[in-house]
Amino acid sequence: MKKLFLLVAAACFAFSASAQEALGSRAQVVSPQINENNSVTLRLAAPEAKKVTVAGNFLTPDGTPVENTEMVRNADGVWEYTSPVLRSELYNYNFVVDGVRICDPSNVFICRDVASSFNIFIIGGDRGDIYSVNDVPHGSVTKTWYDSPTLQTKRRVTVYTPAGYEKSNAEYPVLYLLHGAGGDEEAWMTLGRTSQILDNLIAQGKAKPMLVVMTNGNAGQTAAVGEAAGGMIQPSMRGNANVRPAASFEQSFGDVIKFVESNYRVIKKKEGRAIAGLSMGGGHSYNISRTYPNTFDYVGLFSAAAGNLDNEEVQNSLKAQRDNGFKLYWIACGNTDFLYQRNLDMMKYMDSIKFPYTYRESGEGHIWRNWRIYLSEFAPMLFK
Amino acid sequence: MKKLFLLVAAACFAFSASAQEALGSRAQVVSPQINENNSVTLRLAAPEAKKVTVAGNFLTPDGTPVENTEMVRNADGVWEYTSPVLRSELYNYNFVVDGVRICDPSNVFICRDVASSFNIFIIGGDRGDIYSVNDVPHGSVTKTWYDSPTLQTKRRVTVYTPAGYEKSNAEYPVLYLLHGAGGDEEAWMTLGRTSQILDNLIAQGKAKPMLVVMTNGNAGQTAAVGEAAGGMIQPSMRGNANVRPAASFEQSFGDVIKFVESNYRVIKKKEGRAIAGLSMGGGHSYNISRTYPNTFDYVGLFSAAAGNLDNEEVQNSLKAQRDNGFKLYWIACGNTDFLYQRNLDMMKYMDSIKFPYTYRESGEGHIWRNWRIYLSEFAPMLFK
Repeated sequence: MKKLFLLVAAACFAFSASAQEALGSRAQVVSPQINENNSVTLRLAAPEAKKVTVAGNFLTPDGTPVENTEMVRNADGVWEYTSPVLRSELYNYNFVVDGVRICDPSNVFICRDVASSFNIFIIGGDRGDIYSVNDVPHGSVTKTWYDSPTLQTKRRVTVYTPAGYEKSNAEYPVLYLLHGAGGDEEAWMTLGRTSQILDNLIAQGKAKPMLVVMTNGNAGQTAAVGEAAGGMIQPSMRGNANVRPAASFEQSFGDVIKFVESNYRVIKKKEGRAIAGLSMGGGHSYNISRTYPNTFDYVGLFSAAAGNLDNEEVQNSLKAQRDNGFKLYWIACGNTDFLYQRNLDMMKYMDSIKFPYTYRESGEGHIWRNWRIYLSEFAPMLFK
Repeated sequence: MKKLFLLVAAACFAFSASAQEALGSRAQVVSPQINENNSVTLRLAAPEAKKVTVAGNFLTPDGTPVENTEMVRNADGVWEYTSPVLRSELYNYNFVVDGVRICDPSNVFICRDVASSFNIFIIGGDRGDIYSVNDVPHGSVTKTWYDSPTLQTKRRVTVYTPAGYEKSNAEYPVLYLLHGAGGDEEAWMTLGRTSQILDNLIAQGKAKPMLVVMTNGNAGQTAAVGEAAGGMIQPSMRGNANVRPAASFEQSFGDVIKFVESNYRVIKKKEGRAIAGLSMGGGHSYNISRTYPNTFDYVGLFSAAAGNLDNEEVQNSLKAQRDNGFKLYWIACGNTDFLYQRNLDMMKYMDSIKFPYTYRESGEGHIWRNWRIYLSEFAPMLFK
């Protein structure tokens, strides 16, 4: 078979030059190249371009974001950029070639955030290692569909089950993890690196083995774009409604819990349930945890779009939640987040009613880098 | 919450112009646009470009592939191309901007084939509908890890379970579906549209509900690039070995069957097992089905890299397979495939030993368009 394999491989390479498929075509340059000193070199072969820049979220040593840094053209028409030494992180970037923002054709690792696609790379050594696939036991990730009588439709959901779940007889706790506006049931897996974070924290003994259930929080959408009937529509911040919602996502959340608790071997008690989300999903977590009676022992609000504290019903629900008690109410926000003041105001009200919470303030703003950090810090505090 | 949502959405849009994340940035043009007459219009805003072409697998009405068709620049600097009326199909394309091959920045549907990324779109109405997500019951898709004692490692696998599997008590048949050189356990899902094809054929009553198990056929690789330890290496036709294989993939295949049959509610008999693959995976299916004793009632070779019929052991194994009997041995190949003659030679030998097979010859060559067609035709013949 070896000879035949080489024949096939050679023929496939030959095909790449043909009109038929992109199969096997090779990148002309190496990009990204992670250097030994933890800088990154990016390259693009574009002999005819007049100007090529990098748009990325790399940090200069003093923490200033670098946007639209010019690349330098070498004699062969390859444009190159080498970053400063970077902190261990997951970074993203595009190239901008004569004004057109593109993905790096040499880097197959492409992530989508709402309607934007960009490349990613990881600088290891510290935090980046938590976001990397390491040689540890891996959980399973299932994309499946649950019935939502409240929203009168089937809806898609992503379920992470930790390594060992299939062979165990134990009941597992569940973290419900909710995305923000413009996101969907894919976002926490792709942008949030949830399975890598959980695999690594569990393998290190830092987090308890748990299920993570990643829902679609757009009540008018049954699934991520491309995964719902109605064609491969381009995504938008409004969640691409493909059905007219019969209720709010929060009102339908009991359907999610019911699905999980009747299909998975999980702890069906408050002590085995956590809910957390970012931005709109932080608002969802806030609303669901205060309106579902005594259901969650752990709540995480990440850069949350929460509040509405001029409303007496909201106030009363928070007081009831306080009186019922819980183990952890964790609020995290970046100090440049546009929701920062809103979160401070919410906590001021909580202080006034002696609602116990833990506040984690970070730098930066409303970005996935923060939300990955928050998940990495929140998960280890759960179910202990 | 509505007011707050709008606030969040507006703020996120504002962020898109900032340095922080690509979150929420909107495409400048609509592309692709499927027109009412089933042509497609593609657009790229590139005011400074000198030449923009489309590289795609669109068919002109007479079936000639169109490659590197020039786009036309309008006064606003938007380049546009409208195809001829297209047959119902899944198509792929890139733009080539002044010599740089890129993905369409307005189209988030991006597929990877080995090291190439390109955009896809679907023209519905006929075959394209089988590859689309429709309003039918959907199966679940799980990425999980199985133990391979033969290869001395854990390995990643994709498992499709049909709609209704979770709630049923029935035992289901299993199709093992293998990729080609340069592919991995993702390929049949992304390029092959397996879950859409199975969802639709099952919903139409054309295929029996079955599991589809999509393995990683590169013995030296534990998982697709980016899903295995060792970093986000760029893929290659050689399967990016990250372990030194202790055996061939074919030799290890018993580990896959054992995993499936001890973890899923499946029929553990020959009549409930099918194996099929494309190119290298067709070779694997050929080798596995003739060397595993009386294990498969259904075999599919799609553009298979099979043969080796000058070898007496291979001849004897085929004769044994013939004598054991099976329900279907289906060979499909395109008449411009570089393995076409090889498949003809193999069938000539099979004729000489009265090895019963069904031959399906198609047009075109060694391309995913054919493999999707073959799967769509093969699946309905199984387990009946």
